[in-house]
Order: sequence, then structure tokens, then C-alpha cells
Amino acid sequence: MLISKLGEFGLIERIRRSIKTDSSVIKGPGDDCAVVKFNKDSYLLLTCDMIVEDVDFLSQDKPELIGRKALAISISDIAACGGIPRYCLVSLGMPKGTPLKRIDKILDGMINLSRRYKINIVGGDLSSSNLLTIDVSMLGMVEKKNLVLRSGAKTGDIIFVSGELGGSIRGKHLRFIPRLKESRFLVKNFKVNAMIDISDGLSQDLGHILRQSKVGAVIYEDLIPLDRQARSLKEALFMGEDFELLFTLSHKEAKKLLKKNTGIFKPIGEITSQKYVLSLVDRRNKEKIIRPGGFQHF
Amino acid sequence: MLISKLGEFGLIERIRRSIKTDSSVIKGPGDDCAVVKFNKDSYLLLTCDMIVEDVDFLSQDKPELIGRKALAISISDIAACGGIPRYCLVSLGMPKGTPLKRIDKILDGMINLSRRYKINIVGGDLSSSNLLTIDVSMLGMVEKKNLVLRSGAKTGDIIFVSGELGGSIRGKHLRFIPRLKESRFLVKNFKVNAMIDISDGLSQDLGHILRQSKVGAVIYEDLIPLDRQARSLKEALFMGEDFELLFTLSHKEAKKLLKKNTGIFKPIGEITSQKYVLSLVDRRNKEKIIRPGGFQHF
Repeated sequence: MLISKLGEFGLIERIRRSIKTDSSVIKGPGDDCAVVKFNKDSYLLLTCDMIVEDVDFLSQDKPELIGRKALAISISDIAACGGIPRYCLVSLGMPKGTPLKRIDKILDGMINLSRRYKINIVGGDLSSSNLLTIDVSMLGMVEKKNLVLRSGAKTGDIIFVSGELGGSIRGKHLRFIPRLKESRFLVKNFKVNAMIDISDGLSQDLGHILRQSKVGAVIYEDLIPLDRQARSLKEALFMGEDFELLFTLSHKEAKKLLKKNTGIFKPIGEITSQKYVLSLVDRRNKEKIIRPGGFQHF
Repeated sequence: MLISKLGEFGLIERIRRSIKTDSSVIKGPGDDCAVVKFNKDSYLLLTCDMIVEDVDFLSQDKPELIGRKALAISISDIAACGGIPRYCLVSLGMPKGTPLKRIDKILDGMINLSRRYKINIVGGDLSSSNLLTIDVSMLGMVEKKNLVLRSGAKTGDIIFVSGELGGSIRGKHLRFIPRLKESRFLVKNFKVNAMIDISDGLSQDLGHILRQSKVGAVIYEDLIPLDRQARSLKEALFMGEDFELLFTLSHKEAKKLLKKNTGIFKPIGEITSQKYVLSLVDRRNKEKIIRPGGFQHF
């Protein structure tokens, strides 16, 4: 049996079940970050993301943007848990014949973004590899009261997204601004019940919230904000790398947020009690069940 | 200019110079681990290591041993700083056509070693890649008083190694036992001035201590413990992946250690004031200067 039969998320679930952690681990594999005990008020957040040439970027993409993306993905994961990124390690696999200039530019992209987000690049590893491969692991912190996981959505919650969705492949995936400021605004001012960053497509990532919160959801075609690069609703639902925040708030908190008129956060639907069922109400007011799906590596 | 002209360590030095860190970072890039502030008594240690098929292992190597090695290298880095490994993240790049069984065995190798060393595997990332690539990042802790860096060697120190060196390519590189117990014994009972794990060959890693401590060294052919798999002294000096500890102690501390008759730690030479000069005294008592060298990825 090949891993492609199980799929990326089947494989992750299989790994998750085979791993045991001790009592210092608040949340192990299966969320945007791992969460471990730190001190009286805070947790540590840990996350890593590997990007590979021809899969996550093309060799002709600007090297500054490739380096930038490698770091931005992990920042987005820390933001999805409500935390602040602090330190990162960078493993770089690259062909022996790589021009020094290309590496310098990849590093420039990383260093510029790390400065902007006040993240310390504290170490790394270099290896030869036939395709450019970058793995960034990031350590962040979050106040206990501000931690948000995928598992806290409740029936009746309003579902929100930040920004616009779809068509990221046409450029945004290399230039997106990780929603750190927005996430901190949310966790400091609202009780966010569940949050995830949309890395694999709205339907798939909302599916993660549903599964881990043991709930369902209904979303409205009319309300889903499409990016001007998006060519269809399908791209928002099933294509990856938007790196927007997807989160749920109680009715009361949702009202509070809407009153703020931020212009960034838009309600797209609500959480239902129908376990794992995701349905979409289209423009003609017809409701149909959709199967969560999106980008999978296998 | 290609990166191969600069070499792996030239490239690391170049990166090190371009990175700035804030005051919470005790030691950034350039040691076995990064060291950052944690609490009153302890520091956090961070390290990552990427291994790639055809470079660090062969496709026909047992998958359990490949997984084991990926984790063991990082444990060795934490040990080299005197600390205790606690949490790790695993990024796995692999071809779509990988059999599930192979992944299960790689994970088995990791999980077994993680249990033995009481390390929590708290998360990771999966990606498709044309060659099996594993990047492990590890978070450890070390009491402030027990932290050892490469930079503390002093003129007159005795240089020690653990175990035997050379010939690791014939099997040990896949099966070595990270010297965590030994490192903790050392830092708890002795004042260790400098330490590193031998990952790139004795001469190269001793060279790192010399450069960072601004000292020189003389080592004695007679005293260098050769592994029975080693075919020549050259393999101990210039071949990588022994993953033994290389450390320096003052005369007084060295005497104390030798009295313990551990059988594991052997003196091989001493630190001199001749900056960066590494010399070898051969069996005929002839001294010659050797240029540190060993495995480099580029």
C-alpha cells in the first residue's frame, strides 16, 4: 500500500495515533502548532514547515520570495494559535552547483521578514540536496488565556475569515502577509473559540475545525470573499495557500467584532451540531453538502 | 561564484555574519545548539539537522535506522551543549510512491529512540519530494551552570574524546548511541571548558573549538582511540559522523576525570596558545601541522 492511497491527512492521523507525549505537552501533533508548558502565564508554541522546489515554489520564482515564503508559513501557524513568533531554525538543502548569489537572496528574503516580525534566526543546518528544500521550525509564545486551537468551535458560533480567498497560486502564495497583527487583535479583544490558518483550501481547513471540534458548518456562497485573482468559488473552497485566518466566535462576540468595522474579518457562515457535515448555500439559496477537499501532498 | 567555492563552513560563517539577534539570544548560529533565555536557572537549546537520501543515508539502508539517525543527530547536538532534549518536530519529504510500510518503519525508528531518551515528538510536516528528506528540530533545556559551548577552551586544557573514532561510514553512523548520559555525567561532575560532538571528523570539529576559543592544539597519534571499523588514522581525523564528544578540561579537572577510570573518556592532547594551529605528534614523535578538514556538503 502506497502513502498516496492513505492521503496526507490519513497519514498524519496514523502518525498522531502512534505517538505518545508526556503531561508537559498540552497539544501534540494535529493542530497548527504544538503547545507545551512554559511558565505560569504562557505556553511555548512549536511548528515546522518544509517547502520543496517544484512543489511549493518553482525554480524560476524570485529567490527572495522563496526565502520569505519559507518563514511566512510558520509565522502564519503561530498566528493561528494566537501566539507571537520568537525564534526560528532554518534547514537548507540545495544542489552543490547553486550560485552563492541565489543563497544570499533566499537569506535576504528570510532576514527581511524576520526583522519585520522581530523573530530571531538562531541557527540552522546546510545539506546538499538535488532540489532546493527549506525547512523552517519556529518557536513562539502565547499567554495561556490567548491560546486558540482548532477544537473549540461550538454550535451556533459564527465563522469568519480574514482577507480574501482563492487564486493564491497566481502570486499571493509568495507574497502574503502572515496575519499576526490580526490574530493578536482577535485574541486580545475577543474570546476566539477555534482558529486555523487556511493553508490547504477553505473547505479542507474548515473540515479540520469540524472534525476536531466535533461539529458541522453551513457556509454561504454570497458571503465568501473572493480574491480578485480567484477565477471561481471552487478556488476558494479547494485550492491552498491563502494563509488567511479562519475562526469562530459566539454570537455575542461576533456582534462585537462586526461593530468594530475592521473591514478585514468577514462572517461566512455558522457552526451547526451536525457532526462533520459541511454544507454550502449557493446564490439561489440551495443548500448542498460539500466534501472537504483541497491540496494534499499525497 | 558557486557555493562549493566557499565551502559549507565558509557559507555558514557568511550567514552568521548577516544575522542579528536580540538580547534574549545567548548564542545564535555557530555552535551545536542555539541558546536562548528561558528562566532564572535554565536556558533553552535549539538545534535542527536535515538528512537527505544518497547524502546521509542510502535508499537501501534499513528505514528504522534512517529514522533513528535523524533523531539521534539532534540528541547528540543537545548533549554537546550539556543539556537534555525534551521536544522535537519532524519534517518529512518523500516521494508520492513511497510504500506506507517504509514510512511506518522510519517512524518506528524515531519513536523507539524518542522513548528511550524521553523526548516528545510534538509535531511535524509532510511534503512530497523526489528524495527522502528528514529534518528534525529539537528543543532542549540546560541549567545555566551546565551549559558548555565551543568557545571556552583554555591554553593548557587537556583534550578528551569519548569512545572510538573512524570508520563510522561502515555502520556506526546509523546505529550510534548519542552520548547524552556521558555528557550529563561530565557537566554535573566537572567544569567542562569547551565541548562539541564530532560530526565532521576530529580535525574539523577540533578546528571549530580552536577557532571559537582562539587557541591551538597538539594531539598525539598514539592516544587517538581508533574504532575497530577504522582503517587508518586518517579516517578518525578527516571522516565524519562519529558522533562522539570532544571536550576540554583544565589539568586539575582532567586528573579528577582520569581517576574515575570510566574507560569511556580518553585524553588525546592539549590546548596550546598558538592560535588556530592544530598539530599532530606521530608515533615516531614527529610533530607536524595538520589542516583541519573533513566532510563538507559543498
